[in-house]
Amino acid sequence: MLDGTTDKAAVETLMLEIGQKARAAARPLSIASPERKHAALIAMATYIIAGMDKILAANALDLENARETGMAASFIDRLTLTESRIRDMANGIRAIAELKDPIGEVIAEWDRPNGLHIERVRTPLGVIGVIYESRPNVTADAGALCLAAGNAVILRGGSDSINSSQAIHACLTRGLKDAGLPEAAIQMVPTTDRAAVGAMLSGLNGNVDVIVPRGGKSLVARVQSEARVPVFAHLEGICHLYIDKTAKLDMAVEIAVNAKMRRTGICGSAETLLVDRACASTHLKPILEALAAKGCEIRASEAVMALVPNLKAATEEDWSTEYLDAIISVALVDGIGGAIEHIARYSSNHTEAIVAEDVSAVERFFNEIDSAILLHNASTQFADGGEFGMGAEIGIATGKMHARGPVGVEQLTSFKYRVRGNGQVRPG
Amino acid sequence: MLDGTTDKAAVETLMLEIGQKARAAARPLSIASPERKHAALIAMATYIIAGMDKILAANALDLENARETGMAASFIDRLTLTESRIRDMANGIRAIAELKDPIGEVIAEWDRPNGLHIERVRTPLGVIGVIYESRPNVTADAGALCLAAGNAVILRGGSDSINSSQAIHACLTRGLKDAGLPEAAIQMVPTTDRAAVGAMLSGLNGNVDVIVPRGGKSLVARVQSEARVPVFAHLEGICHLYIDKTAKLDMAVEIAVNAKMRRTGICGSAETLLVDRACASTHLKPILEALAAKGCEIRASEAVMALVPNLKAATEEDWSTEYLDAIISVALVDGIGGAIEHIARYSSNHTEAIVAEDVSAVERFFNEIDSAILLHNASTQFADGGEFGMGAEIGIATGKMHARGPVGVEQLTSFKYRVRGNGQVRPG
Repeated sequence: MLDGTTDKAAVETLMLEIGQKARAAARPLSIASPERKHAALIAMATYIIAGMDKILAANALDLENARETGMAASFIDRLTLTESRIRDMANGIRAIAELKDPIGEVIAEWDRPNGLHIERVRTPLGVIGVIYESRPNVTADAGALCLAAGNAVILRGGSDSINSSQAIHACLTRGLKDAGLPEAAIQMVPTTDRAAVGAMLSGLNGNVDVIVPRGGKSLVARVQSEARVPVFAHLEGICHLYIDKTAKLDMAVEIAVNAKMRRTGICGSAETLLVDRACASTHLKPILEALAAKGCEIRASEAVMALVPNLKAATEEDWSTEYLDAIISVALVDGIGGAIEHIARYSSNHTEAIVAEDVSAVERFFNEIDSAILLHNASTQFADGGEFGMGAEIGIATGKMHARGPVGVEQLTSFKYRVRGNGQVRPG
Repeated sequence: MLDGTTDKAAVETLMLEIGQKARAAARPLSIASPERKHAALIAMATYIIAGMDKILAANALDLENARETGMAASFIDRLTLTESRIRDMANGIRAIAELKDPIGEVIAEWDRPNGLHIERVRTPLGVIGVIYESRPNVTADAGALCLAAGNAVILRGGSDSINSSQAIHACLTRGLKDAGLPEAAIQMVPTTDRAAVGAMLSGLNGNVDVIVPRGGKSLVARVQSEARVPVFAHLEGICHLYIDKTAKLDMAVEIAVNAKMRRTGICGSAETLLVDRACASTHLKPILEALAAKGCEIRASEAVMALVPNLKAATEEDWSTEYLDAIISVALVDGIGGAIEHIARYSSNHTEAIVAEDVSAVERFFNEIDSAILLHNASTQFADGGEFGMGAEIGIATGKMHARGPVGVEQLTSFKYRVRGNGQVRPG
């Protein structure tokens, strides 16, 4: 392993070599049979279980370093591997192994009047770059998911988890080797030098097709602003829950509590509650009381405070804040139109939900709001590839290009056209 | 109209305003009914026919300028509008008007065990930037195609055709207005200052979602290297035609002549002919003679020259040259494997064709070559959105992200998820 003192030029040379190896590996990978990819994934899971002790020992090193540098408890928690977490990791890879292989699937086909038969067929994207922080399990998740879609992957984990990630990575490459696939299909950047990230963002001379950042807002922001290749990501999830005047009160309360409080730290957690002015007298108080009873801090607009006393006032900043915590901003709006206006202004285009019985309000919500995921009478916390039935996800994207919403195996693919003729030439 | 002497800061301010107006227009456009978009397109076509004299007068100005600056005859031809070309332009818009509106189409839908019903629905991309050169008809084609997909568009035409393009653009905005759509849905950059292009490539503060360059290689190269937003384009079309030993000779001859000579200046024209060594003694000479008879210059590998005397020798550079002219490079290869290797090395991933009767050779060609379009027993010149049945196309993309191959109305869209529940909350 190279350390942080390596000079920049050496890191760039190293990264370009990694890029070339990834591109070279992508070709055999793109034509590997489903059986071979399946075998590699199953072998990886087996090696992870067999390597339990080594992985735990490597993780102990990372944890010791983290404690010495005085990292926060939440950081230590994300970094920590246990026997149970390692088993989950192996099971995650086995679940990915059982997903239907998307490569070669005919997505669409049609005939032309001249007899040409056209097929649009799924192909791998090529080389994926994954840049992540302290969670060592991303090594296994991202490596397995990219392989399942026939892509080569370059993994650049956080320096804090480098020992854990390398121990996991060793299990992945052994699995590739056993199945007769190129080990360079899943490469891990062997240096913690930050210049490696810059090199990946430059695209490594055209040898990285897409970058997926996994981590906090500052990482995603850097990747989005500096990357010279496409990025699948969301910067933040300022998710809204709108309670229409036609909402059933019980359902509204239950969904609001779940959308905000089930897990407050995930991107699909609701950050702003919008209540239709027309039902504020009946719905507002029970919802806020249920949230407060679960320990949620309420930051209220003036109109909300006029109806429910003793609340903290929301500032303008609150409407565009992703708390990722037990805090929610609350405003009244003038029906579905008001909700749409508020969301158009403040949303991060990730996920929004409406609770309503009125079909026309739901249709306006669905048609007029341009977020990746819109839900009716369901919690925003369903914004997740697993919950969508996609199996694993590598993240959620809010961009509009290529992948949008949960990014699973299918979203990590491209396509090509296969055209079958019997001698057609083009007239004219 | 601002002229080329405007200072850079003023141009940038102007462009940012154009970007904001485009983004603002994109929202009403995204929810406009199919009928309204249809009405706008039909009105545009009507105004173009009604404005024939004005458009021809504007074009005469551009032609006068071009002749004064001593432009080449091919350039003058691309720039020239005639009554018949203007009628074609109007008919092109009418054809786009009759395409099925892609927006709101449910691309996929499924149910989850918890009762959630998930739909993936087509939405507009947002704002498209189109940068083109001397062909004034791109103004109409691109404007109409972007509108049909519910997108706002910013058109930046070449300075040589600015008068023609502005006359056409005036017809488009009148059509938008008549249909009650925002005129800013189709904006034309009113300055020929080159700083306007740089501003568009920067993405105009997030107000351009994708750039489509239409023009020569140097334009596309600049756009691809400088754009900070996704680009739908192909830099070049180094298209290969492979004649397998199992090819029917008549078909091979006919397809080779059509693939190269039907039109030599289009991106789907074949630039390299690969002939299976196993059929060189029977197939090579008749194919080369047929090409030569049509006036095609042959640049041959040594092995080809050994079989057919008096040919010009190909250099290494020829294998990666897009002639866009009546020239073809010819090599012998060792069967389908050799063809795949040659194409992997030199192709621009645009379009490749195989002539063969052997199904297994065709399957290898289709599986192992990663170009946007692969054809069996058909001419490479079918690489075209119209020939694919997509109606109009805005270009052909060789990138793997989002759009690939012909870029038609459907490829100018994104999607979102609509999830319908009846009170579901997420457990755990």
